[in-house]
Amino acid sequence: MGNDAVQRLHELWAEISDIGTAASLLAWDQETHMPAAGAVGRAPVMATIAGLTHSRLTSPELAEVIEAVEESAGDDPVLLAQAREARRHHERAVKVPEALARAIAETSSRALMSWQQARAEDDFALFRDDLAEIIRLTVERAEALADGGNPYDALLDEYEPGTSENSVAALFSDLTPELSDLVKAVAESGVDVDESPAYGEFPERAQRDLGIAVATRMGFDFDAGRLDRSAHPFCTSMNPRDVRLTWRWDENDFRPALLGVMHEAGHGLYEQGLPGEWHRTPIGGSVSLGVHESQSRLWENLVGRSRAFWRWAIEPFRLVFPDHPEFAVEDIWRALHVVEPSLIRVEADEVTYNLHVAVRFEIERRLIRGDLDVDDLPGVWDDTYDDLLGVRASSAAEGVLQDIHWSMGAFGYFPTYTIGNLVASQLYDAASAEAGPFDDAFENGDLSGLLAWLRSRVHAHGSRWLPDELVDRASARPLTSASFLSHVRRICEDNYGVI
Amino acid sequence: MGNDAVQRLHELWAEISDIGTAASLLAWDQETHMPAAGAVGRAPVMATIAGLTHSRLTSPELAEVIEAVEESAGDDPVLLAQAREARRHHERAVKVPEALARAIAETSSRALMSWQQARAEDDFALFRDDLAEIIRLTVERAEALADGGNPYDALLDEYEPGTSENSVAALFSDLTPELSDLVKAVAESGVDVDESPAYGEFPERAQRDLGIAVATRMGFDFDAGRLDRSAHPFCTSMNPRDVRLTWRWDENDFRPALLGVMHEAGHGLYEQGLPGEWHRTPIGGSVSLGVHESQSRLWENLVGRSRAFWRWAIEPFRLVFPDHPEFAVEDIWRALHVVEPSLIRVEADEVTYNLHVAVRFEIERRLIRGDLDVDDLPGVWDDTYDDLLGVRASSAAEGVLQDIHWSMGAFGYFPTYTIGNLVASQLYDAASAEAGPFDDAFENGDLSGLLAWLRSRVHAHGSRWLPDELVDRASARPLTSASFLSHVRRICEDNYGVI
Repeated sequence: MGNDAVQRLHELWAEISDIGTAASLLAWDQETHMPAAGAVGRAPVMATIAGLTHSRLTSPELAEVIEAVEESAGDDPVLLAQAREARRHHERAVKVPEALARAIAETSSRALMSWQQARAEDDFALFRDDLAEIIRLTVERAEALADGGNPYDALLDEYEPGTSENSVAALFSDLTPELSDLVKAVAESGVDVDESPAYGEFPERAQRDLGIAVATRMGFDFDAGRLDRSAHPFCTSMNPRDVRLTWRWDENDFRPALLGVMHEAGHGLYEQGLPGEWHRTPIGGSVSLGVHESQSRLWENLVGRSRAFWRWAIEPFRLVFPDHPEFAVEDIWRALHVVEPSLIRVEADEVTYNLHVAVRFEIERRLIRGDLDVDDLPGVWDDTYDDLLGVRASSAAEGVLQDIHWSMGAFGYFPTYTIGNLVASQLYDAASAEAGPFDDAFENGDLSGLLAWLRSRVHAHGSRWLPDELVDRASARPLTSASFLSHVRRICEDNYGVI
Repeated sequence: MGNDAVQRLHELWAEISDIGTAASLLAWDQETHMPAAGAVGRAPVMATIAGLTHSRLTSPELAEVIEAVEESAGDDPVLLAQAREARRHHERAVKVPEALARAIAETSSRALMSWQQARAEDDFALFRDDLAEIIRLTVERAEALADGGNPYDALLDEYEPGTSENSVAALFSDLTPELSDLVKAVAESGVDVDESPAYGEFPERAQRDLGIAVATRMGFDFDAGRLDRSAHPFCTSMNPRDVRLTWRWDENDFRPALLGVMHEAGHGLYEQGLPGEWHRTPIGGSVSLGVHESQSRLWENLVGRSRAFWRWAIEPFRLVFPDHPEFAVEDIWRALHVVEPSLIRVEADEVTYNLHVAVRFEIERRLIRGDLDVDDLPGVWDDTYDDLLGVRASSAAEGVLQDIHWSMGAFGYFPTYTIGNLVASQLYDAASAEAGPFDDAFENGDLSGLLAWLRSRVHAHGSRWLPDELVDRASARPLTSASFLSHVRRICEDNYGVI
């Protein structure tokens, strides 16, 4: 039975994976190429495909096969990991009753619309009832998943397997006070960074050329990938040899496009580096959203904003933007490290960013715990921003209504952004210590040493270990905020004289 | 049970349709956007999705539901049509044993490769064994489908429901001798048509602009569709509000791109005109390949090559190609109606085209009947070309190896091209008699009268009737080659003085 069970698990999972690929393509197409009028017809197709995945994940045969693999795996670590990941997905699918899953899907689809309307009209009341219902259903789902455990842990587990509310809270308890102090000190420093090197006229085609040149230099293989425009940049993968990035651009500021492409290419390198031999198996995919975000943030922030990278990049930059006034590397470094408390998360700099996440984490754990009434949410949001960042939204659209996540029932998602930032810094320090320092290589446009380290320490392992173990093995210590904090302290010191 | 069964049939078919949409998107993407390296990973995904469709079509529940709908439909014509189409698809899926279907899929995939190699190396022997095996398996499949009837009819039925070998043979028996005589008379006329108005320098962007302008003028809605490049032009549809055309171009001859876009937009208009209320039901799709081809050929040949159309089109043409030498409408008409016996079907003009199809029809019915040995195929191919078109290939690549169809096991497909051409002319004559003549409107760039007629007589009916009945109702007579023959006679007379 042992070998047969392993074989059968691979067959069943290959089908689940293939259906997932179809779903990914439908989603990619919707954001990149689908004609506007096609949207109405697309939704039911995506729902049908999601239903197929669900029926496969919940099948009694899969349950039996997983059990058989567990029994016969002995101490084969790969087989045990295959069974563990298969079981995790199976149980998450089984534990949520179908009626509840359907209610969540329907409510989300309604909530998404009322959220859009509420944001457009700057009126929280339009979203209030749907949000309350989404929260109620999410709590129900979390309790079903938690099986007597902490419901918020069960939500986190979807995006960051093995992570808990307590461990996230511990990270923030180190992070939040120091960041909050730093940000306030920066605001009080009186320093006004000159951002003019980042402004100018940047034609779409030239920005695209630069993005592709830089992504290629990072090691992203465009024979096994592509770059398309979309309203919101993202990365998706059909398989490790078909990985798709998207981008958008600002004609008067080169930073969003270039750093955005580096961000997405960081995700893309992870996908292209996943182990081909485990593709279509339970451990063939990326390990978590946090680790995924660590790859994007590492390339975006620790490479793309570094002085060493710019000593090389200034030349390709001049090539595509010949009319742009010359600037020194130090000037562009300063323009790439503006720190400013602000209201909108997606526009936040790397120092303030995690404070935006801290606000959301504090609020959503209270919502799930039942400690916070929806009617109090806008006020608590504004007060927490005031408290942590020293800013207060003048409208709900710029405050509590800015994010799409809760309308989709995606609670427990926000912390993965911060985990990603912390992991990025910790991995970068570990890579530098072991395979670096990289500065000389970066100055020559050689980013391959860093990629090789990430390939062997992160990408090649798929999801054979839980994220904590992966980070621990790769960086030889458990995740803390130390690397990240020393990184942002340097920024605040160099750019604002804040010590 | 009656209403419940109808409801359940709709649910089951919506799922089949949605899975089919995912398959269509995977296929479209493969030809238009998939990175080259992604091909290896794409094949198993498409096989999995095809397997899902097959399992849904063969499900015992579907069989029961169809029977229940048949029993309760009374004489409701729409319900009867829903049941008829559902049963047709169900039975075609059920009758082919799974092992045979798998053997055909595997052999086709091997044959596709050996065909490509054989064509590249101009060596029929490299394809011979796989082709023999494909034929053997196709005969087995045809016999399973035919249930004691004529196997070739069963193959035709996949593409042209209700059509038979005999009825196709009857069409060709009218068509072939007269076309063959016409073509030979043209070759002997000594007239050499001046094609220079079609030659020049035509930048990709300008060709695309013209194609989009003309397709838009035809009524193709680009808010519900798109145009992408691909190696071989095609049209595919996700739903009536998401219809995708592809194109390619020749930088030195504007005809392939412009007429190609009109051809694909003709297909696209059909898809955009299908009844939205029947979408995701058994009768919501196009009725047959032949009728589909009639829509593309009608716009390509009867509109796109007409004098009336060019009296309007010459202006947008000059707008996008300002450097092209001026020409008279009569000159371009002549260059659009070159008749020349040639070896390659896909490059054939509208007069010779059906003779290429006649060769294939004669050969493939003999192959399926067991009257022709694979080893004799290349010789018979060349002799038949000589006989019908007066030309003989100097290489297998230009002869028997030119088409992909047989390597994929697509026997019974070729006749639909000719049916399409005949239907196009017959429908155009009927539309002209009823809603035309269109010349004055065309000259003013108004193509809407023709589209309105096609919408109401063809597009709006989905597949509620079999193709024969649809054509009969739309044109008030059964399909013959009369309209088509009088159309090509006029071409040969006007351009070559052949009477």
